[in-house]
Amino acid sequence: MLIVPEKDIADLMTRQAAFDAVEQVFAAMAAEDAYNFPVVREAIGHEDALYGFKGGFDRAGATLGLKAGGYWPHNLEKRNLINHQSTVFLFDPDTGKPTAMVGGNLLTALRTAAASSVSIKHLARPDAKVLGMIGAGHQATFQLRAALEQRDFERVIGWNYHPDMLPNIAKVAEEAGLPFEAVDLPDMAQADVIISITSAFAPSLMADHVSPGTHIACMGTDTKGKQEVEAALLAHATVFTDEVAQSVSIGEAQHAIAAGLISEGDIHQIGAVINGAHPGRSTDNDITLFDGTGVGLQDLAVAARVVDLAEKKGIAIHVDF
Amino acid sequence: MLIVPEKDIADLMTRQAAFDAVEQVFAAMAAEDAYNFPVVREAIGHEDALYGFKGGFDRAGATLGLKAGGYWPHNLEKRNLINHQSTVFLFDPDTGKPTAMVGGNLLTALRTAAASSVSIKHLARPDAKVLGMIGAGHQATFQLRAALEQRDFERVIGWNYHPDMLPNIAKVAEEAGLPFEAVDLPDMAQADVIISITSAFAPSLMADHVSPGTHIACMGTDTKGKQEVEAALLAHATVFTDEVAQSVSIGEAQHAIAAGLISEGDIHQIGAVINGAHPGRSTDNDITLFDGTGVGLQDLAVAARVVDLAEKKGIAIHVDF
Repeated sequence: MLIVPEKDIADLMTRQAAFDAVEQVFAAMAAEDAYNFPVVREAIGHEDALYGFKGGFDRAGATLGLKAGGYWPHNLEKRNLINHQSTVFLFDPDTGKPTAMVGGNLLTALRTAAASSVSIKHLARPDAKVLGMIGAGHQATFQLRAALEQRDFERVIGWNYHPDMLPNIAKVAEEAGLPFEAVDLPDMAQADVIISITSAFAPSLMADHVSPGTHIACMGTDTKGKQEVEAALLAHATVFTDEVAQSVSIGEAQHAIAAGLISEGDIHQIGAVINGAHPGRSTDNDITLFDGTGVGLQDLAVAARVVDLAEKKGIAIHVDF
Repeated sequence: MLIVPEKDIADLMTRQAAFDAVEQVFAAMAAEDAYNFPVVREAIGHEDALYGFKGGFDRAGATLGLKAGGYWPHNLEKRNLINHQSTVFLFDPDTGKPTAMVGGNLLTALRTAAASSVSIKHLARPDAKVLGMIGAGHQATFQLRAALEQRDFERVIGWNYHPDMLPNIAKVAEEAGLPFEAVDLPDMAQADVIISITSAFAPSLMADHVSPGTHIACMGTDTKGKQEVEAALLAHATVFTDEVAQSVSIGEAQHAIAAGLISEGDIHQIGAVINGAHPGRSTDNDITLFDGTGVGLQDLAVAARVVDLAEKKGIAIHVDF
């Protein structure tokens, strides 16, 4: 069995490899070749930690396993460790024996960024020029970097609840040679693509902040109660997601569903668009919205890529297990 | 982080260490210092495999993690690998970082054997002389070996649906210097302690096969539909279990509950007896019955012992993860 420690991931994994892995597994999910297991998520009553397991099996990719870990909110202040800690374990689907253990922290950031990028590739207008960012934390920099590779964007506009964090994303835009402008939320109407990546419990982006033809990727809502955009926006949009069951229960769509504005049948798997089973955007005036909730299969997919890369480069640690 | 491969477990782990670990974690569960997470168990649609995760957190023992793996029914015939395959992963409850990966196959056998032994220690009559075995497969040898250490047994009697397997357990009895006799089920009335360890879906041991004063450990029923003993036996007995929620849903008690013969409140945690919060057996004529369903915390507890032993002996594999 192979071990790829967290410290080796940054040198091994590329945005392109993460993109390819996530695109393929979303397609496999829609083709019913891959499915996620029920998620275990426990407040363990120690260090205020949330801990659990996201598992799945991708028959098409022969990838079986889980991501284990969670959120330790005092890690940074107490121990100078990052608060999100996760590890991916892969198993041989033919035998049940463990095949790999992979650091999951950077991979989680990359697979989340890859998901919004996959949605942009398949749903944004080809001529999209202005990218709007809602959120400017650490994860926002990953989403932005990955998104810029999908269209010939000419400028980036951004809004954050704490404006003093906007330089995080301004820096990424400038590194890519693009101008960045801090804007008010109504100015998001200038954007052709909007990515929201916050941990908000109330909507920031309202329906009238969004112009016809925009693609929106809602990437922050992964828990009951969280919300980034006005529920009415989903009623105006064609809604896509990674996994419908999560979208309606813990994703951005939970609110539009609860308000009766849309029904589960109005939410489409992004994988169906990738596979050609759903046409995706139908006109240049459509608003498309991707509700990215985050699934275990994404973690397994990027971890499997890392293992391949580590083997090719000869840097995986082999353990006779 | 430390790795203890499957091949090292046999030389490291002892029945006594497994017993101590399981006794302590049962006590912690009853004291509400330890709890099991919801179990994930999936028929993955490949190789007829069942795969899943049993996690938990023992605050008292500072042990957090999961056992992952399952049952690959064609491993032995196709690949000369054992069909049950599992691995235990431990995490630091202070930080969420992985601390150990431990082969879980032999440990599962040892922790299951330890559970019936713990029940014998705390519930069987001190003067028990005759041990009855129902079942004679591989796991039965583990249950028997462990049980023999708990009382001064003078002989072993056994029954199995396939009598040609009885030499498996006869050999263990003879190695311990005890006579073994194959018997019919009604002859189990001679036994002071009975262990059932089968994968049956219909009862073998009937209420009138059991004498007053007997302790019975039902160790085979871990799934909806399985059954080893007549439901009426539970109505005559004082019933104990590892975890009440599992006992009533997937354990031996599921049938007595469904038939209305006992209620959930009639089932006691074995840990309460260990802690002194429940008196256990009250007279020499009581029938006591332990419904051993198997919980993730047992796996974590024995794995944590192995890691300690491997460190002390200097044979754990250290990986900078």
